[in-house]
Amino acid sequence: MKNNSTVAVIGLGSMGYGIAQSIVRSGHAVHGYDVNEAAMTKLASEGGQAGALADIASTLDIVLVCVLNAAQTESVLFGGPTPLVPTLSKNTVVIACATVPPEFARTMDAKCMEHDVAYLDAPMSGGSIKAANGQLTYMASGSSEAFDMAKPALDASAQTVFRLGDTAGAGSAMKAVNQMLAGVHIAAMAEAITFGMTQGVEPAKFLEIISQCAGTSWMLENRAPHVVAGDYTAHSTVDIWPKDLGIVMDIAHASKFSAPLTAAALQQFIAASGSGLGLEDDAAVAKVYARNAGLTLP
Amino acid sequence: MKNNSTVAVIGLGSMGYGIAQSIVRSGHAVHGYDVNEAAMTKLASEGGQAGALADIASTLDIVLVCVLNAAQTESVLFGGPTPLVPTLSKNTVVIACATVPPEFARTMDAKCMEHDVAYLDAPMSGGSIKAANGQLTYMASGSSEAFDMAKPALDASAQTVFRLGDTAGAGSAMKAVNQMLAGVHIAAMAEAITFGMTQGVEPAKFLEIISQCAGTSWMLENRAPHVVAGDYTAHSTVDIWPKDLGIVMDIAHASKFSAPLTAAALQQFIAASGSGLGLEDDAAVAKVYARNAGLTLP
Repeated sequence: MKNNSTVAVIGLGSMGYGIAQSIVRSGHAVHGYDVNEAAMTKLASEGGQAGALADIASTLDIVLVCVLNAAQTESVLFGGPTPLVPTLSKNTVVIACATVPPEFARTMDAKCMEHDVAYLDAPMSGGSIKAANGQLTYMASGSSEAFDMAKPALDASAQTVFRLGDTAGAGSAMKAVNQMLAGVHIAAMAEAITFGMTQGVEPAKFLEIISQCAGTSWMLENRAPHVVAGDYTAHSTVDIWPKDLGIVMDIAHASKFSAPLTAAALQQFIAASGSGLGLEDDAAVAKVYARNAGLTLP
Repeated sequence: MKNNSTVAVIGLGSMGYGIAQSIVRSGHAVHGYDVNEAAMTKLASEGGQAGALADIASTLDIVLVCVLNAAQTESVLFGGPTPLVPTLSKNTVVIACATVPPEFARTMDAKCMEHDVAYLDAPMSGGSIKAANGQLTYMASGSSEAFDMAKPALDASAQTVFRLGDTAGAGSAMKAVNQMLAGVHIAAMAEAITFGMTQGVEPAKFLEIISQCAGTSWMLENRAPHVVAGDYTAHSTVDIWPKDLGIVMDIAHASKFSAPLTAAALQQFIAASGSGLGLEDDAAVAKVYARNAGLTLP
């Protein structure tokens, strides 16, 4: 393995930018791309490399794709007049980080394989702060060659890499399961913290007590403080959830799997987004409950 | 405070029996009562005291009521031809442990006060094993006198006593909030572990990975192992949840609070109970999901 890899990070949003920074810090050459040119300029000023993607595609060891969804991932890899993957060299690995249906990951893997490009199905978890600190968790699956080739980027950006199997799709499946639970737990926190208010339980007392009881969850302990503080600065936005729980429900439907709690949580996030809260922190789903019950949150 | 209190424990089910044992171990005189005479006989053989309740009522320092619900609690305290509370001495405290509506706790407190009997609204959390080990958590509220008088029994049976205020109702309110979350999280675990199976994620792998991810919860880590092991020996039964989430929904409805996730979870537990799983461990709600999706659980 080379000590200095050449990496393209495509998608410089809150997650991708942090990943790119972490890979720069590890001493690799990082070319960053985004529709937002300001993000590209900023990365170039912080140690990133310049250069049009088409010009450097054949020199890349790793292409890390950190965009919103399956459609954008496919567009990055195979869209446009000159699709990217056919221009990559045979020793390149694509690391696909978006939350996508497992079947989509398998399709992308097969299409990359046609061009002798390796594919790692590697959705992640952890949020923008962990991305910037190189402490993400990846739920990854793919061939051992794909893992080996991806190692420099994973080492630079991850605290934990779960290896979930040797074929694409298993990583995305586990990510879907995790997102189902995470989304339901955020909505459940919002439902319970506002229900408590109707019974005279103040949000701060709710957090103090419930975090020590059987009713606690990782998401409750992470998000309830935002409600208690009345601070909805977005660490992860409301709008993530109509997307991710929508993917989960689509997969579930295709598998004829009935998921009533996930369906209920999805509706609450859609209501949050529909009432103008889409870009707030996802704890703002509590505002839907508060509004429906005539409560005033902190 | 006396070193040796005289305590009646009324209701010797999985929780009450363990509480009675813990109080016996602490050196207090414990009279145990239950409609199941075998439980009374067993307790008497393990250090408990014999004697009809009517005969010893006036000698009691503490009456701990550990029955199923509000109706049974009221029946114990004020039902029958010779209601109990009027026969208690003025220095007696009632510790009421069932999950009940906060308004019911306030009513019981007022009725006990008419007879100069103290009342501690003290629903608990922790399960039968913690009850037997004296490691329960109480979510309690009441006057400081009620807490003082209850101290010998709480010290003997609790790891943690949350003091939630000086009036009855606050303890029951927090318990309702905790049960809302606990019930939703058990159903969410069941929904996610079976959804994962449709995507090729084995239950054991689900538990291994998700317990380290943002999708985890206290209930997931406690109950998912039962599904993985295929062991539905009841630690806490399915039938607890139609009762407790029913109480939560009743309180919510009375407060005009819309609780869609709780409603969805309640339906899954009703389906579990209705299909004959009521006396199995509550993790058996996963069987409803598995049946609906044609899956075979471990």
